[in-house]
Amino acid sequence: MAAVTEMTFEIPKKFKAIVYDKPGTISTKIEEHDMPEPGAGEVLVRLTHSGVCHSDIAVMECTWRTLPYPTQPGQVGGHEGVGIVQKLGPGNERSRVKIGDRVGIKWVAYACGACPPCLEGRDGVCFNQKVSGYYTPGTFQQYTLAPANYVTPIPDALSSEAAAPMLCAGVTSYAALRKSDAKSGQWVVIAGAGGGLGHLATQIGSRGMAYRIIGIDHGSKEKLVKECGAEVFFDITKFDNKTLPEAVKKATGGLGAAAVIVCTNSNGAYGQALNFLRFGGTLVCVGLPEGDHMAIANAFPGSIVQREWVIKGSAVGNQREALEVLDMAARGIVKTHVRVEAMEKLTDVFTEMSKGTMQGRVVIDLQ
Amino acid sequence: MAAVTEMTFEIPKKFKAIVYDKPGTISTKIEEHDMPEPGAGEVLVRLTHSGVCHSDIAVMECTWRTLPYPTQPGQVGGHEGVGIVQKLGPGNERSRVKIGDRVGIKWVAYACGACPPCLEGRDGVCFNQKVSGYYTPGTFQQYTLAPANYVTPIPDALSSEAAAPMLCAGVTSYAALRKSDAKSGQWVVIAGAGGGLGHLATQIGSRGMAYRIIGIDHGSKEKLVKECGAEVFFDITKFDNKTLPEAVKKATGGLGAAAVIVCTNSNGAYGQALNFLRFGGTLVCVGLPEGDHMAIANAFPGSIVQREWVIKGSAVGNQREALEVLDMAARGIVKTHVRVEAMEKLTDVFTEMSKGTMQGRVVIDLQ
Amino acid sequence: MAAVTEMTFEIPKKFKAIVYDKPGTISTKIEEHDMPEPGAGEVLVRLTHSGVCHSDIAVMECTWRTLPYPTQPGQVGGHEGVGIVQKLGPGNERSRVKIGDRVGIKWVAYACGACPPCLEGRDGVCFNQKVSGYYTPGTFQQYTLAPANYVTPIPDALSSEAAAPMLCAGVTSYAALRKSDAKSGQWVVIAGAGGGLGHLATQIGSRGMAYRIIGIDHGSKEKLVKECGAEVFFDITKFDNKTLPEAVKKATGGLGAAAVIVCTNSNGAYGQALNFLRFGGTLVCVGLPEGDHMAIANAFPGSIVQREWVIKGSAVGNQREALEVLDMAARGIVKTHVRVEAMEKLTDVFTEMSKGTMQGRVVIDLQ
Amino acid sequence: MAAVTEMTFEIPKKFKAIVYDKPGTISTKIEEHDMPEPGAGEVLVRLTHSGVCHSDIAVMECTWRTLPYPTQPGQVGGHEGVGIVQKLGPGNERSRVKIGDRVGIKWVAYACGACPPCLEGRDGVCFNQKVSGYYTPGTFQQYTLAPANYVTPIPDALSSEAAAPMLCAGVTSYAALRKSDAKSGQWVVIAGAGGGLGHLATQIGSRGMAYRIIGIDHGSKEKLVKECGAEVFFDITKFDNKTLPEAVKKATGGLGAAAVIVCTNSNGAYGQALNFLRFGGTLVCVGLPEGDHMAIANAFPGSIVQREWVIKGSAVGNQREALEVLDMAARGIVKTHVRVEAMEKLTDVFTEMSKGTMQGRVVIDLQ
Repeated sequence: MAAVTEMTFEIPKKFKAIVYDKPGTISTKIEEHDMPEPGAGEVLVRLTHSGVCHSDIAVMECTWRTLPYPTQPGQVGGHEGVGIVQKLGPGNERSRVKIGDRVGIKWVAYACGACPPCLEGRDGVCFNQKVSGYYTPGTFQQYTLAPANYVTPIPDALSSEAAAPMLCAGVTSYAALRKSDAKSGQWVVIAGAGGGLGHLATQIGSRGMAYRIIGIDHGSKEKLVKECGAEVFFDITKFDNKTLPEAVKKATGGLGAAAVIVCTNSNGAYGQALNFLRFGGTLVCVGLPEGDHMAIANAFPGSIVQREWVIKGSAVGNQREALEVLDMAARGIVKTHVRVEAMEKLTDVFTEMSKGTMQGRVVIDLQ
Repeated sequence: MAAVTEMTFEIPKKFKAIVYDKPGTISTKIEEHDMPEPGAGEVLVRLTHSGVCHSDIAVMECTWRTLPYPTQPGQVGGHEGVGIVQKLGPGNERSRVKIGDRVGIKWVAYACGACPPCLEGRDGVCFNQKVSGYYTPGTFQQYTLAPANYVTPIPDALSSEAAAPMLCAGVTSYAALRKSDAKSGQWVVIAGAGGGLGHLATQIGSRGMAYRIIGIDHGSKEKLVKECGAEVFFDITKFDNKTLPEAVKKATGGLGAAAVIVCTNSNGAYGQALNFLRFGGTLVCVGLPEGDHMAIANAFPGSIVQREWVIKGSAVGNQREALEVLDMAARGIVKTHVRVEAMEKLTDVFTEMSKGTMQGRVVIDLQ
Repeated sequence: MAAVTEMTFEIPKKFKAIVYDKPGTISTKIEEHDMPEPGAGEVLVRLTHSGVCHSDIAVMECTWRTLPYPTQPGQVGGHEGVGIVQKLGPGNERSRVKIGDRVGIKWVAYACGACPPCLEGRDGVCFNQKVSGYYTPGTFQQYTLAPANYVTPIPDALSSEAAAPMLCAGVTSYAALRKSDAKSGQWVVIAGAGGGLGHLATQIGSRGMAYRIIGIDHGSKEKLVKECGAEVFFDITKFDNKTLPEAVKKATGGLGAAAVIVCTNSNGAYGQALNFLRFGGTLVCVGLPEGDHMAIANAFPGSIVQREWVIKGSAVGNQREALEVLDMAARGIVKTHVRVEAMEKLTDVFTEMSKGTMQGRVVIDLQ
Repeated sequence: MAAVTEMTFEIPKKFKAIVYDKPGTISTKIEEHDMPEPGAGEVLVRLTHSGVCHSDIAVMECTWRTLPYPTQPGQVGGHEGVGIVQKLGPGNERSRVKIGDRVGIKWVAYACGACPPCLEGRDGVCFNQKVSGYYTPGTFQQYTLAPANYVTPIPDALSSEAAAPMLCAGVTSYAALRKSDAKSGQWVVIAGAGGGLGHLATQIGSRGMAYRIIGIDHGSKEKLVKECGAEVFFDITKFDNKTLPEAVKKATGGLGAAAVIVCTNSNGAYGQALNFLRFGGTLVCVGLPEGDHMAIANAFPGSIVQREWVIKGSAVGNQREALEVLDMAARGIVKTHVRVEAMEKLTDVFTEMSKGTMQGRVVIDLQ
């Protein structure tokens, strides 16, 4: 019954896609691609918006040690896509997703649902995952295929450009805060509180989870971080490795923080973070330093034992966490400073981001 | 009503105590001390047995960075003491502990019950703790004072010499296994499975908590480790940093272990341990390396994030855990190879231990 | 060194105490009592304020099935006391509490710290507890003795009259919310949201723990409940056992609430509560119905299994939770509507409470 | 590439299926059915064995209040099926499951993976579940279709007849024990310890999870229950509602059990169970009483609050738990007394079960 699975919206034969034409450098090119056909269990999504994330640059420039293979020329990047389901593949007539639904596509574009991590609710580290924008076509294009049971429904109350950054930066921040095991009312330090992940973690933590937030970043970010809900801000440039932990202790009434979320990709930030913690406190690792691997500087067994500290890694979050953070955004608790740009501007946007001068987050209009 | 608080047992005026006469070296001396009087909230315990722990040597030789002050000459060491309550201080008439009760004294000889760690059930890291045998008289003596509400009742079914090592090595091993958050039926690696802590962790983990244990140690320990309940044993001398993680993965069906408990004090063991872990697995730090602090070699933020690993420190356990492990010992689940020695032999015992030739554990007979 | 343990404040020989002269009826009398002397481990507290709780009436009138023995004539009631430490008993020279400290006394006036519940952090159900105002002199008097290590420090930023209700109603509400295991951002129903416990649970839940609160009570309480932070209010008189669960489901987007906290003492409220819950949701029992025990009306094994519901009891909370809720009050998150009355007014206050016409909470000025 | 997705094994055009020809009574009939074709995401399984569970009778006789609709004539029952994957539907070429794999089919034959319960790892209560043998063809037939990503791989070391009962009774028992939150070494009571669920719960609890088990059942089951690993057995016929809780308390050293798992379908057993519990203990509801719903007799708010008891429902367990209990069975920890019968005998088997005279469990040979 074709009428059920195909809308009157006319699906074109060709569409525009942005590819990394010279991986290893910042360079993108718009190409024309043929329209694909959704297979069993798949849907065709007409993408309208895609957020631009720092991870896209790491993929394009091949700078992350955690990505095993070099990115290939012709890769379509992007992993914060929002669009409309346009067509269902065979076998999806009774699927949860309907034509016309607005859905998101995340870093983990596909999870198998059956491997050990999936069976423990850790689909963010699915053994059979496909990564949007890395060896799987990403969201910097007008159409893409996606698994019917793993696209992420977008709440009606949330605009597509506001939803896009929630699909990666939002859920990543939120999943990290959940892993902290801090209780509402406790102090949580956000290292890099003014950055892409950090300014969301600050909002989610303070308004959405009732933590008391200490933000740490360069002084220029103080206003933003405070607006995001931090009670206390420390300008990283005015402290050293000895005085900053002392300042955190004092701000927390002498005890230290229940958790630190390291949202920056700085080995230096990791080196400081353990000493912010109270007994039994948790350091959550989120930001991925580029270049050679370096051990967390103060991860001494003696100190960890004596204070019963915990160090945890948090990858990109799971599907449930994505829905929860989108709900927070729809309720107005979390807001991203979003600038919408045309597809042609993506190379410029990457250049601006890599200079570190970006304010807020860019979302590409794909329509 | 003096009859209630003082037994007919005649308490002498003097008693024998073993002191560290030359801290920084292995040397002990037996002295005669005056009998103390229990104050409010205290009891007088006639000690009959004290285990000898590797930590005693670290205190005596001042080799642990986690102990802030040098040990003073005249210190009475020991922190695995078992004895009989002989007298109650004022205000204890209605105490839980009665004269004639057999009780234990642990590393944390006193916990305040009111500081933040105590209020979270972490009395092992009490802010106001007194450490038996370090700036508080320990258990290498015939009599000592102890807090009425913090001595540890010994189950009737357990002999005093068998109970002694449970009070430190036993509870420390058990608390570390609990912190691993591994579920019964999962694989747990014990690094240093043939040592003082490790051979108890192997028994507690396999028989008391239904874990599947992989023991790692020198080949000479294989028989002991297997008898303790390990399903799999790896001889550390036959593998390198690359092949040992591969062997663990293979033994666990390809996934890696749910937890690793590092019971040795070797930085090298810590360096290997993370790579034994499955996604989301937990490395529990217990053994305290001597000398300069070194970061855990593979504690890279990138690896920790990507596999969502957890690193946790576990100190000496709390009072509840002590009761639980004593119950396991009383039920025959955990056994220590114990050799009983006279007070005069303590220096020799320390020397033997520091050479690494000790088999099992020594308990000093104090009667 | 007497100067350390006794202030220049002159302690009188006699003081005023309010006693239940005719238990079984509402009747109190002011008597003059002799000043007691603090024993080992005790402190003498000069009480300045005591909250009046509905439980006091249940004790005075002997209406609770959970209290095993009838209250005796001459009982000093009260269990929300705030005062100043005036004298330390012997052995407390180095106690955590100092003369001049402002401290609170709770329903559980003494917990042993050594029984199984205490060792699991459940000192609210200590096997050896003494209950303030029931077989132990309570806080409706000008002086009382209390255990040095179990009085509750009051934050400087909180007035004594504001602190008093936190010591019972506050911590009880908070402990129940914690036991719900609901996550921030989830829906929690407060049954009896306008009552003494409920209006605190609504504030703590919404502002202190980031829950989305649905308040249920009589229509006259709507304004109060909304001001306390409830997003949704249902007037109990406008729904029946079928339409109220439907309304809760609809308000929660179709799923049902993650938790219901029953703060009233109505068997009818318990009967409705399970049907408000989503799959896996938790009903927390707090309010104690008077009269004959009645089973929770819908606690059918079949329903509980099919929806994997959880039912939990929550008693008065522990010492840590008391400190946490006092911290919330000191930060301005929780406020009680307090009316201060003189000691002579206590009988009138009880009469007013038993009529159900009380607005907010009364605190007795004991100075 | 058809060679990949279809084995040389010849799939017949017709196969035998056992149907309920007269729902409401015990009656089955063997019919010949046409071979179905697997759709997208489906596999065709050649069933070799199916366990017979008491729930099958409840479905056939329409006696459970939790099943909303009457069973229809022609329903193929059964939900403990084991077989071989014989064919893959379109789109499954790269599926986790391969032709020739041995797999199981459970009560929840299909879970969507995307609804709220699935996203929380509770696929056992999936909102879109299909129940094997109730409005979805079950496992009392030679062939069936199943979802490729939700069939349950069977470990090589486990025979198919031993695996069958694990797929329902095994995982249900295990999931209930996990929900108890009891810790290894604690006492757990199994009510109905000699029954189909109970004798598995006793084995899993004692050997697989290191609980100390108290079994309760009729005296004739004592030998079986003790062989299954119970330390203590109580003959239900020799105690009443007052003496049985006293006996449990005494056996547990005075405290009561950490958990009770009610595996029987008796309202009387539920009525007794709460009083077996220690403070904070958990009653896990598993057995479904037939007939009219009755509230758990002692589920009084006052008692639940005072002892901080927990009541939890546990449905059929999730896919991860199924794999875990199959692993326990493959390791020899759990054994079912299995009797293999021919398809023609199913009506007789049901009759025998409904008389309560069945020893162990019957598995139907479908080959």
